[in-house]
Amino acid sequence: MICVQKKKDSMETSLDIYLTERKALIETHLFACLPPQGTRPANLTEAMRHAVMCGGKRLRPILCLAAAEAAGGSAETALPPACAVELLHTYTLVHDDLPCMDNDVLRRGQPTVHVKYGEAVAVLVGDALQTLAFGVLAQTPETAPGMTARLVTELVSAAGATGVIGGQMEDIATASAPTRAAIDYVFQHKTADLFRVAVRLGAIVAQAPDRDLEKLSVFANGLGLAFQVMDDILDAADSKSGGKPELSCLDVMTETEARAWATQLTRDACGALSGLPGDTAPLSSIATDLLSRVS
Amino acid sequence: MICVQKKKDSMETSLDIYLTERKALIETHLFACLPPQGTRPANLTEAMRHAVMCGGKRLRPILCLAAAEAAGGSAETALPPACAVELLHTYTLVHDDLPCMDNDVLRRGQPTVHVKYGEAVAVLVGDALQTLAFGVLAQTPETAPGMTARLVTELVSAAGATGVIGGQMEDIATASAPTRAAIDYVFQHKTADLFRVAVRLGAIVAQAPDRDLEKLSVFANGLGLAFQVMDDILDAADSKSGGKPELSCLDVMTETEARAWATQLTRDACGALSGLPGDTAPLSSIATDLLSRVS
Repeated sequence: MICVQKKKDSMETSLDIYLTERKALIETHLFACLPPQGTRPANLTEAMRHAVMCGGKRLRPILCLAAAEAAGGSAETALPPACAVELLHTYTLVHDDLPCMDNDVLRRGQPTVHVKYGEAVAVLVGDALQTLAFGVLAQTPETAPGMTARLVTELVSAAGATGVIGGQMEDIATASAPTRAAIDYVFQHKTADLFRVAVRLGAIVAQAPDRDLEKLSVFANGLGLAFQVMDDILDAADSKSGGKPELSCLDVMTETEARAWATQLTRDACGALSGLPGDTAPLSSIATDLLSRVS
Repeated sequence: MICVQKKKDSMETSLDIYLTERKALIETHLFACLPPQGTRPANLTEAMRHAVMCGGKRLRPILCLAAAEAAGGSAETALPPACAVELLHTYTLVHDDLPCMDNDVLRRGQPTVHVKYGEAVAVLVGDALQTLAFGVLAQTPETAPGMTARLVTELVSAAGATGVIGGQMEDIATASAPTRAAIDYVFQHKTADLFRVAVRLGAIVAQAPDRDLEKLSVFANGLGLAFQVMDDILDAADSKSGGKPELSCLDVMTETEARAWATQLTRDACGALSGLPGDTAPLSSIATDLLSRVS
């Protein structure tokens, strides 16, 4: 199985090229979605641009495009949902960084929005990026009747009170007394729900039948969980950049157990990809590549 | 012209009955949109219910239903956009009340969300109510192809960085040095944009032709501006409940001038309603009734 083998140099190179090209495609579309420079109120729209343009691997939108192709569709059609997911992800980061939440001062080496522009602006930037996410999603070509309503309903379900926002709520509430049950809830909702919907939106615009949609959902959910496990392992190795204590799976298991968990999740995720009509190599390569970060 | 005459007792009674019935209809639908009691995370969903259930005249959703009828459609079809607008309005109140924004401790006689549940919960409640607003909007029956995409695009345009959020940004930025230009910008975007979209969404689901949509937009925009002028007049009369200073039109004009402005806006708004196919009496009665609060 390709996705859990150690990477060869040639494959690494082709994945790197793929990720670089996809990131550029997404960022071109993403930046065009933002209010043009100088749009009033200028400090708000400048801060929105700062939040969105300031780096990131664009992993979730890349997965959205790759899922559309794995389902037999085109990446281009999936650009609006891909950008919607990235805007939504960015808004959650801006709000999570607030002093009343994780109180982070740096993100990707840059000052966070509340540090650079003030707390009120950071609240409004997050709000405006969420609004914009739904606006961009509504630009998706209606390849089937009811497509927009379906896409919006999927994103709302993943992003709302019982999805990403619920995950952040429980993350804050349980960080001081971590349990395995809390880890499972937070990893599922704060992280995996957004990976899952990124892939589902790509598959839906590609008009994937339910069977293929389910396979891709299983893949993305496992990948999302594995990503969070690996993130905790890498965070533990790094010196923290400040901020409040956050829930980590290493509070309830050893690093060896966490590595084994991430490996198993990745293996199962890739196993779910068989039988899809399109090219699944990018999805499995991304999963393998992420796992190699902690191996 | 009915809408600027002094109300007769019989008319007041029929408007009161109308508003009470419409409020009940909207609240039944609105409360059913919320996560059921006990939904995990329980403190988040309880705080969402507190924010939404804690009063309010439901003016914007009532205008949405009345606009659908004025355009010749049914109020029932417009319930999802009406509730979406109310959820969106509620999220902006929760975030505007935050310590880093207006720092209000009471709203409608109840403790604000950040006072009762904490600041982090208040940020997440606002976020979740915005997400939910788009979810509820996507439940609107697709009475015409592309309906959902159109509704979402309209709401995003009114609610985003160049709409309500932009209005709040400029409100904070200019409150310490008010000018007439700032008043015009803030009143338009912070207040009138949401009145306008409430009415437009109702008219769009009723499949109003562009001509009627434009008439209703002119009505709602004028009413929204008048509402904010009257709000400032009433706020000046009340003792403030604490919080930071807010932009008021009384900073740049006398109370007599403000009353005259509200009267003119209301008269022009009602004048735009002629020639619509449905019953416009509720819309003009609401406008007259609001004006009578400051007469």
